Amino acid sequence: MDGADGPSVALQSLAGNGEGVFEAAELGSRISKERFDQELPQLRVDLINAHFDLREADFPVLIVVVGDDRPGVNDLVNRLNEWMDARFIRTHVFGELAEQERQRPRNWRYWRALPGRGQLAIYTGNFALDTIGERLRGVIDDSEFERRLDHMASFEQTLRDHGVLVLKFWIHISKKEFARRIKKSLSKAGDGGRLDEMDHLVFGAYDDGRILSERILRRTDSSHAPWYIVESVDARYRDLTVAKAIRSALLARLTQPLVPEINRVASSIPPPEHTILDNVDLTARLGESEYKTQRRQLQVRLRHLTLRARAEGVPSVVVLEGWDAAGKGGVIRRLTRAMDVQDYQIVPVAAPTDEELAHHYLWRFWRDLPGAGHMLIFDRSWYGRVLVERVEGLVPETAWRRAYTEINDFEDQIVRHGIPFCKFWLHIDRDEQLRRFQDRENTPYKKYKITDEDYRNSERWDDYRSAVNEMVQRTSTEFAPWTLVPANDKRFARVEVLRTICDILTKRLRQR
Amino acid sequence: MDGADGPSVALQSLAGNGEGVFEAAELGSRISKERFDQELPQLRVDLINAHFDLREADFPVLIVVVGDDRPGVNDLVNRLNEWMDARFIRTHVFGELAEQERQRPRNWRYWRALPGRGQLAIYTGNFALDTIGERLRGVIDDSEFERRLDHMASFEQTLRDHGVLVLKFWIHISKKEFARRIKKSLSKAGDGGRLDEMDHLVFGAYDDGRILSERILRRTDSSHAPWYIVESVDARYRDLTVAKAIRSALLARLTQPLVPEINRVASSIPPPEHTILDNVDLTARLGESEYKTQRRQLQVRLRHLTLRARAEGVPSVVVLEGWDAAGKGGVIRRLTRAMDVQDYQIVPVAAPTDEELAHHYLWRFWRDLPGAGHMLIFDRSWYGRVLVERVEGLVPETAWRRAYTEINDFEDQIVRHGIPFCKFWLHIDRDEQLRRFQDRENTPYKKYKITDEDYRNSERWDDYRSAVNEMVQRTSTEFAPWTLVPANDKRFARVEVLRTICDILTKRLRQR
Repeated sequence: MDGADGPSVALQSLAGNGEGVFEAAELGSRISKERFDQELPQLRVDLINAHFDLREADFPVLIVVVGDDRPGVNDLVNRLNEWMDARFIRTHVFGELAEQERQRPRNWRYWRALPGRGQLAIYTGNFALDTIGERLRGVIDDSEFERRLDHMASFEQTLRDHGVLVLKFWIHISKKEFARRIKKSLSKAGDGGRLDEMDHLVFGAYDDGRILSERILRRTDSSHAPWYIVESVDARYRDLTVAKAIRSALLARLTQPLVPEINRVASSIPPPEHTILDNVDLTARLGESEYKTQRRQLQVRLRHLTLRARAEGVPSVVVLEGWDAAGKGGVIRRLTRAMDVQDYQIVPVAAPTDEELAHHYLWRFWRDLPGAGHMLIFDRSWYGRVLVERVEGLVPETAWRRAYTEINDFEDQIVRHGIPFCKFWLHIDRDEQLRRFQDRENTPYKKYKITDEDYRNSERWDDYRSAVNEMVQRTSTEFAPWTLVPANDKRFARVEVLRTICDILTKRLRQR
Repeated sequence: MDGADGPSVALQSLAGNGEGVFEAAELGSRISKERFDQELPQLRVDLINAHFDLREADFPVLIVVVGDDRPGVNDLVNRLNEWMDARFIRTHVFGELAEQERQRPRNWRYWRALPGRGQLAIYTGNFALDTIGERLRGVIDDSEFERRLDHMASFEQTLRDHGVLVLKFWIHISKKEFARRIKKSLSKAGDGGRLDEMDHLVFGAYDDGRILSERILRRTDSSHAPWYIVESVDARYRDLTVAKAIRSALLARLTQPLVPEINRVASSIPPPEHTILDNVDLTARLGESEYKTQRRQLQVRLRHLTLRARAEGVPSVVVLEGWDAAGKGGVIRRLTRAMDVQDYQIVPVAAPTDEELAHHYLWRFWRDLPGAGHMLIFDRSWYGRVLVERVEGLVPETAWRRAYTEINDFEDQIVRHGIPFCKFWLHIDRDEQLRRFQDRENTPYKKYKITDEDYRNSERWDDYRSAVNEMVQRTSTEFAPWTLVPANDKRFARVEVLRTICDILTKRLRQR
């Protein structure tokens, strides 16, 4: 087919399609050499120029190229690198999971590789296909398959919300064409043509694979980031079609910046009079000698647990949040004193670097996720998004409201990967905070010196209180509940955190 | 020994010492509990405050803690984390080489972990000890052992030149004390005390290990970063001694910033009339049809070589430097067109990010080094230090002069690791450059648009020419020679680069 209506018609957006999305694309589409040679020069000039402009733009571009035609995917990605400025394309060919990737939630490697603003990345190789393969081989069951699709869909949702331009291409050949190529490769002497063992496997499972592929395409298709199924009988048609789709998407986005989101939130609801924080019993106390006994016992227990975790390769994540002067530093010291330095890493969350600012706010936390046997202790965390950034008005309301879902999804993936996870809010009242500020003014430790800013933050106590309340309500999930720790008494708080972490580690290590 | 002269006396700087550096430290030094309890509070306040001030300072701190007393090293590092602000310490426990570390030169993991300005890192575990272990087991011979020491010494030299405060502690116990502990651990029921199998191995090779340790200590000792041998019979003595040494070094550096280096360079020598660049035959040309034939043959050859490199896990590094408009981009496209995208990565070298600026200029290039089977193509490189940064006066003369040695050492480690390496200078004359600038003004590609700055750079032609000359002279080493490519004729240049890379890859792949 080399019609005047051109290749754009054959781009199959799944939205609204019935059964058989692949059949609809099996049209034997071709483009003549003359037409290819005629269109290519202008296309390349446009692509190079759009790619050049992108480098100054405020959004990243992610192009996904996968499909059943594996040699075709490979050739196409090579072509895209040739037609755009290869120096500014990061092509990630995801293969079998490497050691450090297996130790972390599945999406870790996709988060790590994300482009920043003005950058362009191509994801290819096993992206999405590994999930099909594992289902076909029975490594995962149907419910795990669906869960993976959920995580893929929410990953893409997050990217779109962050303004990433996502373009997804599925490079397709019909079973008949596939059979023809298999036959040809078998009849060829020597290297078996361009098909390898994996292609033979893919062909052998073509029908089952097709059903699973359709499910992936349907589940992760959306109006913002539709899948394009591109037929690959003819390389010229395939390459030109994809390149033109990229050109039009890039130009559209470069010339028509996203309209700022309308504030979708109903006018703010007045905070409830009685909140979840009121239920925290701030009178909880622990006597000096009882504290010493319990703390020592718990530290011995924690030490043994972390040694076991190291031996078994179980990583863990601890999040510490709380009011200024609530005693996070003291809690962390009691934790780490029980452990070997090789078994933990503390991550103090400070202002982001320029590289971090160019990415989604969760990017740096994904990047930090621990490998086998390590405990990662976050001193403040991703919750800054719905606390300080919300209260100080650093991000629009839509952004921090969205964060609740994004955070729940992030923690879900951590927990599902079998990583013990706990998060603490160290709670004190305002009188106690002011008392501690005054104490600190007389301390010899510079790091505890109080500035005017601390007192100013304290004056926003009620705003922070509302934010904490909503955070706890919206992110206390079955898989990752908040532990609210009464911290007016430091001894009580330290023992409480130690005990909770020990319990969660014990539960996880017993399961193995 | 609990004398009034205090622990600082027992710090053994090796400089100027005769034989038996360890014997000199075997004094049975102890500190009483009373004295420890009396000195500790002020020491901790000082350490915490100095660590706090460091965060605003313009230098990084690297503390190395290794030695024959492995449990002692572990306890000491835990203590340092407790006594300073553990949130702002990155402790790196180097273990056995992981997959991705084996694929790269040995120092890669030490470069990667380097602290930036205002940061503090502790290196412990197998740092330096792995080299002793491999020599003991006969994995490396004496000359390789010496080469490793050279690389360690030049690594530290580079750090010091960069202003890193380096503190090195060797935690030592005598053979007699070691024997006592081994005996005790064997007599203990159950877990064998605190010593593990590795400690028994270390004890078994104590005498040989001691000789090798002395060689390491002597070779990497210097007035700027001396080794401190600290006796570890008594934990209080050991911990207090090291902590006090850190305190005094930190305070000294914080209160007395380094005096700006005196310009050690003799007043600049006028550039020679006839230079190495004059020997490049700029009339070299290649006809259109001959070019096509040769290019195609070389691209096929390159493709096969990169497929073999992938199969055998051989990475490679290509550096492209040259005048503006010399045709680097065109050369790169002819290279990559021959390869699969999964087999190469192009690194365009642009202005450094703030994280990169906080580190030594070679840090980002070390970090980028490729893993198994990947070709890394640098579009401009670390040579920026001795070209643009020199000519534009962005760094003092001492800094770019030092860079020649640093770069040679860096490339030496790449080549010695068995990574095929080539570097090209694409050479054109000034007339040709101006002609190409004028051509570009009429091109439809925005990325080639010429700005006033390009013409300004061109006016500094003679300065750049001197810089290029000196660069080629000082960094054309036996292991990593420059290939000067006549590039007035683009066709000739492309074929020349392709052929050189093919030859170097062939040579390396044949060796295996």
